[in-house]
Formats: sequence, structure tokens, C-alpha cells
Amino acid sequence: MGDQKLPSRAEDFSEWYNQVVLRAELADYAPVRGCMIVRPYGWALWENITAALDRRFKATGHMNAAFPLLIPRSFIDKEQSHVAGFSPELAVVTHGGGEKLEEPLVIRPTSETIVGHAYAKWIQSYRDLPVLINQWNSVVRWELRTKLFLRTLEFFWQEGHTAHATASEAEAETRQMVDVYVDFAMKDAAVPVIPGRKSEAEKFAGADVTYALEAMMGDGKALQFCTSHNLGQNFAKAFEIRYLDKTGQLQHCWTTSWGLSTRVVGAIIMVHGDDQGLILPPKLAPYQAVIVPIFKSDEEKAQVMEAARRIRAELLNAEVRVTMDEREGVSPGFKFNDWEMRGVPLRIELGPKHFAKGSVVLARRDKPGKEGKSFVLQAELAEATKRTLAEVQQALHDRALAFRKANTGEPKDYGEFKQAVETGFALAFWCGSAGCEAKIKEETKATMRCIPLEQSGGSGSCICCGQPAKERAIFAKAY
Amino acid sequence: MGDQKLPSRAEDFSEWYNQVVLRAELADYAPVRGCMIVRPYGWALWENITAALDRRFKATGHMNAAFPLLIPRSFIDKEQSHVAGFSPELAVVTHGGGEKLEEPLVIRPTSETIVGHAYAKWIQSYRDLPVLINQWNSVVRWELRTKLFLRTLEFFWQEGHTAHATASEAEAETRQMVDVYVDFAMKDAAVPVIPGRKSEAEKFAGADVTYALEAMMGDGKALQFCTSHNLGQNFAKAFEIRYLDKTGQLQHCWTTSWGLSTRVVGAIIMVHGDDQGLILPPKLAPYQAVIVPIFKSDEEKAQVMEAARRIRAELLNAEVRVTMDEREGVSPGFKFNDWEMRGVPLRIELGPKHFAKGSVVLARRDKPGKEGKSFVLQAELAEATKRTLAEVQQALHDRALAFRKANTGEPKDYGEFKQAVETGFALAFWCGSAGCEAKIKEETKATMRCIPLEQSGGSGSCICCGQPAKERAIFAKAY
Repeated sequence: MGDQKLPSRAEDFSEWYNQVVLRAELADYAPVRGCMIVRPYGWALWENITAALDRRFKATGHMNAAFPLLIPRSFIDKEQSHVAGFSPELAVVTHGGGEKLEEPLVIRPTSETIVGHAYAKWIQSYRDLPVLINQWNSVVRWELRTKLFLRTLEFFWQEGHTAHATASEAEAETRQMVDVYVDFAMKDAAVPVIPGRKSEAEKFAGADVTYALEAMMGDGKALQFCTSHNLGQNFAKAFEIRYLDKTGQLQHCWTTSWGLSTRVVGAIIMVHGDDQGLILPPKLAPYQAVIVPIFKSDEEKAQVMEAARRIRAELLNAEVRVTMDEREGVSPGFKFNDWEMRGVPLRIELGPKHFAKGSVVLARRDKPGKEGKSFVLQAELAEATKRTLAEVQQALHDRALAFRKANTGEPKDYGEFKQAVETGFALAFWCGSAGCEAKIKEETKATMRCIPLEQSGGSGSCICCGQPAKERAIFAKAY
Repeated sequence: MGDQKLPSRAEDFSEWYNQVVLRAELADYAPVRGCMIVRPYGWALWENITAALDRRFKATGHMNAAFPLLIPRSFIDKEQSHVAGFSPELAVVTHGGGEKLEEPLVIRPTSETIVGHAYAKWIQSYRDLPVLINQWNSVVRWELRTKLFLRTLEFFWQEGHTAHATASEAEAETRQMVDVYVDFAMKDAAVPVIPGRKSEAEKFAGADVTYALEAMMGDGKALQFCTSHNLGQNFAKAFEIRYLDKTGQLQHCWTTSWGLSTRVVGAIIMVHGDDQGLILPPKLAPYQAVIVPIFKSDEEKAQVMEAARRIRAELLNAEVRVTMDEREGVSPGFKFNDWEMRGVPLRIELGPKHFAKGSVVLARRDKPGKEGKSFVLQAELAEATKRTLAEVQQALHDRALAFRKANTGEPKDYGEFKQAVETGFALAFWCGSAGCEAKIKEETKATMRCIPLEQSGGSGSCICCGQPAKERAIFAKAY
């Protein structure tokens, strides 16, 4: 497999994606249709993502917990929009311990219902609020068309669930988590995102308002990076989550939920990757740098390896996540290609010639060829590595942002609009009607991705019906 | 609930346990029979356990990955002992996406089968070995009698799965993980454990050899802390996990698996707790110290709170996990009891009198009353806290070890044996026959816990049949 050429992104973006995932050993297909195995390299990336988010969740006062994966089927039916949204996607357990169950159970597709049931029990008074809980787990949704990381029957994610005394506190929490996700996307994933509101058609089944972060992939399509839902009192009423306020009145709580899944691994691949494979942002890369020792004779090997080990120790000491490719029987060129496929941000080449000069070659993954190569004195390597990693991190973000800007149209009429969504995003005034949204989807396959929180102001005419419109929205074909 | 008295351990150990779990808010019952919700405080404890283990797993060369929770029913049938052991406990998914599935799926009861399927695909040559993978997840076993943390339908754990080229490497890995677990149990959980071999009757369904760590709970019963299995070539043959050796011959691999679950939370409760509630070992406690400010007037409050905040900052800076109880409307006495129930190892009391003297009271959770209290100058608090936490950690271990020794008999005859297993462990020569093991279980309800790896040598007569015996074994009633 390593011998075959990767299809180029221009040629077949979808097949390029599949092969990168498999060849970089991020994930593999599982025996059950639509499920995936996240392999160690892919999971190490996910672990870095979880750590970066978990730190932010805890800094904003949340704690983790674990709710069960089995939910009584009847729970799903308690909230009207929720049941409509999730019923078709359920995996149902009908037998346990060799016997048919009295009531079928479902594997959680998301946990609002079982969390709601618990919160109703735990919350008595205003003193118990807010409840700020997150959980890291996997959920199952019976998807028909699946793709590794982007849409799988089982996927890994975090789901935050909070309960508050007032509507404004719930809205503030929902928006705070949008900010947390934006901060992570921009600074750690180097993925520029557009935070905005979803339409009624696209919002979460059971939410009053859904906020989402939309990102542009390398083929111009949109991907929903994550979501944050203001659930109003919908689940509080369905599950009787109530509290006694300071005046002794019984009130329903206001709840939120927010989640980010292994889809973002797919986003990182599709935003940053190139025709040689993955390019990982340094802050999340399992290995930020790989040392490739180069030698021919045993004498060269002894010298080079000694210097390579010293360098590795220095970099580890400087808290750089570094690995060394000591494989025997494969050429340096093979190793270069292999680590390029895996997207390691920096390659450190160390051969006898460099050794003699007391230097190494530092090669940036994001700039192929000579442009990305520099000679660095070994004595200055740790500092140069850290500086270069920061540069790569910023460069990935900037490149992705420039790409999105270049591929976002602001069409003046419906004809231009249709052209824009063929290759990227269209930012256009929209009247807000479900009718126009449906017509656009029908005619162009583009969906309303979000109404960006940042609006340039003014008003105009709906790109579809021409009626007065107050807000611009992003439309695009989407994953 | 907080008003009622906790039953004493002597009075009703089982009910004491249940109430401690609920009142300390470690876990709660879920709507599905036998499932549990791990609440934030309990999950924070589990997070510290996972971090302590994960660090050790990675230091010994393992990486994490994620295998799917859904397994084709037919996979379970591929290994003969495995199917016999796990068939009765399966949760079966028969419907997905509104349709009946062609082949039923099971929720993993453990992942040897699906891991075996993947390893068969990934492993081609000796160069691919060893494969050293762990995963953190939850599994489902349809247990009939359940108890929070100790035995639940769904439980949280890690399961390591490795593949090796030779039998001796697999055995070395199996034993290495025993050592890793012992190190964690002794140093972090402060639980003295006896590592040993399981009998044929008690070993894992599909293993050649099962090693386990046995610990004595506060009521003298045994609890299996974790296990490490040498699976020989059983799964390699069932799933065709093969590799080309250096001579070009196709060989079956040798595999291992090893796991530790949320049961250890139960062990920590039952080993260290007292009649006031939990006592957590400092290395794993979510909060190592709690500051309780004491004041009456507003003037006192201002002074005390200022000092309390300063102390908190200093302790956080010294990397002590500290919290402060700022709740209004509850007395210091209530707070003392509440944090004692939750097992926080150290309480720091700070009132106007202490404030005037520039000191605080440091109260050890493991030594109730005056004996565990000391006055410490605020300037020396960080150092005194760290030193005291280390003392508590050691004291908990030593007390548990002394208790186990005091309750472990070395019976000379079957009469003494029967007495010993009424209240604790019996260490006795055993001929190794399944007959004697079954007879003992039938007559005393004690099971063969393990044949300790450390043997005092010599030989003797089987405690049951009197036949020659070479090894001593631990027998006990068990959770």
C-alpha cells in the first residue's frame, strides 16, 4: 500500500482523504459496517485534542462525569422534537443475559434524556445551581452513509450538559462554550472557524437555539466543527428538572448542551493536508518533530546515532514531542515519505556531513522542498525547533484562512450565488424563511450553514426571494 | 439524607458502603437496572486513577487506541472457552436504524475478539511486533446481582491487548503488567495487594494463565483488584493472528490482555473508609485539602477570607489540589462532617483566633479527634501540607497492611481453615486439584483467590485432602 501513489486532492478529494486516514494509520474500518477503529496514532491525536479542550472546560468551572450508555427506549420519546430527530437512528438492545428485555434499551445517540432524568433528582434548590458537567464518551447513531471520522455509527466526543436558574444564564453558558470552541479551533487546531446560529431546519432536535462553528475544507465544502445548544426549558419540562427559587417558588431550570467529536480529526485532515498526506498542527501533533538519522558505514552510524540521541534528549527536555526513526532496512527517503504522510510538522535530518559541521537540517512539513529547509546549529536546535513549530502553527492557520477568504463569494444575485456554492461558501442576505432555505437546498445542494455572529451590518434583499433581509448567512455544500 | 447517621461498618458493612457512595456523591443509580452514573466527584477520583496508570502504561511502551463497542455476535463464538464464559452475560443489539439486523451485534463484554480480528489484519511480519495497545472504555456484562462500582452492568476500565513473537515475550509482558499494577496499588491507591496466579476455575475465559492482585477489604473479604492474562495462542489461532518470522515461516502470535476497572474505586472505599465516611489516599484524592474559613462577624469574615484566599493560592502554587468551602448558611461543623464523608485527606481550619496567631489548624482525616490535629504557622503551611499528605498516604497503606496481616490465618487443619475464612484470608497449602477447590467453596463459601507469586517455600499437605502440596494459596470469601 505504501508503494502506491496517493491520489491528488484535485483529482479525487474523497479518495485522497480515505487513503490518508488509512496510510497514516489514523483509523481503520471495523467489522461492523460504519464503525471505525481509531488506531494508536489517530488516538494520540485525539488525546491531544481532548486535553486541550478538557483544560478549557475545567478552567470555566466544569467537571467530568459518566452517564450510562444504555437508555430506556421510552426516555427518547419524552421530548417531542428529540424523538422526531433521533428515533430513526437508534441502535436497540432487546436481549440481555440470554433473555428478552421487558423494555427495549437504546444505546445513547446523545445523553440529554438520561442526564435530564438525573438532574431532576439531583437539583432541589437554587443552591444546587448551576450544574456544570461534561462527559467524554462514544455515542451510536445508525447512519447510512459513513466515512471514517466524518460520519460513523459509533463516534467519540464530549457532551457538556448544564442546568441554570435563568434563561440569561443558560444563554451566557451556551455562548461561552462557543467562545471556548473558537479559541481551541483557532489556536490549537489552526482551523479558522465561523461561529454562528443554525436555522430552524438545521438546529439540534430539542434546542431553542443551536450555535455552530463552520469551517471550510480543502475542497471548498463546509464542515460543522462543533455545536452549542441552548435547550431552553424543553428538557427541563420533559424531565421535570425543577428548583425552589429564593422566594420558595418551584421553577423549571434552563439547560444547555454542547459537543465536539472525532469529526474534528477529519476537519484537521481536510483543512491542512496536501498531496503528500497529512499536515498536523504542532499543538496537536502526537509527534511534533521526527529525527531521521542518515548514515552508510558503521562508523558513520556510531557518530550519527550518538548525536541523534543527544539531540532527542535535549528536545524532550525542552518539552518538544519528538520521536526518532531508528528502523533498519528502509532508506532515509522512505522514512521522509512515511513521516510526511503522517504529517509530522518538522523533520530533523542528521547525517555525517551535518555532523561534521555541528548542524542539522530542519525541514518544515508545510513547505515542501528547499523553501522549507534550513540548516541549524545543533547548539541552537531546541530553540529553533520551538520557534519553527510556532511558525508552522501560525502558517497553517493563515493559509487556511486565506483559502477560505479566496473561496467565499458575496454574490449579488442568485446566479452568482449558484456559482459560489459550486466551489466554496456564499455569504448572502437571507430573509430567514424555511421556504427559501429549502429551495436553495433543492436547487443547489447547498445548505444554510450558519448566520455568523459577526455581521457587517446593514440590510438587503434575500438572495433567493428578494424580500427584505436583515442578516447575512453562509450557504455551502457540506460534509 | 445528610442528617441521618451513617450505619457503622461493624453494624452493616454493605449498607455502610452503599450510603458512603451515595452521600459522598461518588455515584448514583441509573434508570436501567444495574447501571450506574459516576458523579463528578467519583469521576474526578477515576480520572486521577487513570492518569496514574496511563503514565505507567506509556512509560512501558504502550499506546492507547479505540476499538468499537459493537461486535458481531459470531466473533464471541470463535474462541471456545471465551464463548462459554461470556455468552450468558451478553447485551444484544438486534435492531438498528429502525430495521432488524441481519446478524445480531453484542456490546463488548471485553475486546479480545474484535482486537484479535484487527491484529490479524495489521500484523504481517516480525517487524510489526510487538503490538502494545491499551484502551480506556466501558464494557457491558449482564450481571444479576449488582452493587455500585463493585459489579455493574456497564463498567469503566482499561483493557490492554498485546501481541508478541514468542511465548516468553508474552509471559514477560503479562508479568510486567502485574508489576505495574502492584506499583500503582501500593504507591497510589495505598492498597496492599497480593499478586498471584488464579486457578483453572477462576481464570479468564480464554487465558492460559491469569494473574490477579488480591486485596483485603475492611470486612475481611477479598476483592480482585485487577488481572493480567497470558492468552497463549488461543486468540491468535481463533482469529489467525500470524506473522512471518525472520526465516520466512508463518507463525501464530502470542497475546496478552490485562485490565483494571472502576471496581478499584470500591476497593479504595472499603479498604480505607471509616464510620465517618470515605478516606481517600492523597495521591488520588480529587481534593487533597479543604480550607474551611471560620468567622462570625463581617469584620472577622473579611480578615479570615483574605487570609484563606492567600493560603489557597500558595497551596495551588505548591501543586496541592486544594478547595475552599465558601458555602454560606451552613455551619463549620456541618462542613467538617461533609468533607469527612467525602474523604478529603486534610482539613485546614482558619478562624479569627488562628488568624491572630498567624497559624491554622491542620486536621488529618485518617486520625479523628485531637490526635490528628496540629497547629501550623501559615508561613510553613505549604511545606507542612505536602509533608502531612505524604504521611497520610503512607499511614493508610500501613494500616491496611497491618489489618490484612491481623486477619490472615495460616490454619494447621481444616477446622482452623474454616474459622479463618469466616473473618479474613486463609493462607494454606493446596494440592491444586479442582475437587478440593470446589469442596472448599461448597462448604465454606470461600474461593481460591490466588497462589501468591511470593512463596515461603517448602512443601506440606493440602488443607482439604491432606495430599502432598507444593504451594500455598489464599482462600477467602470474595466480592
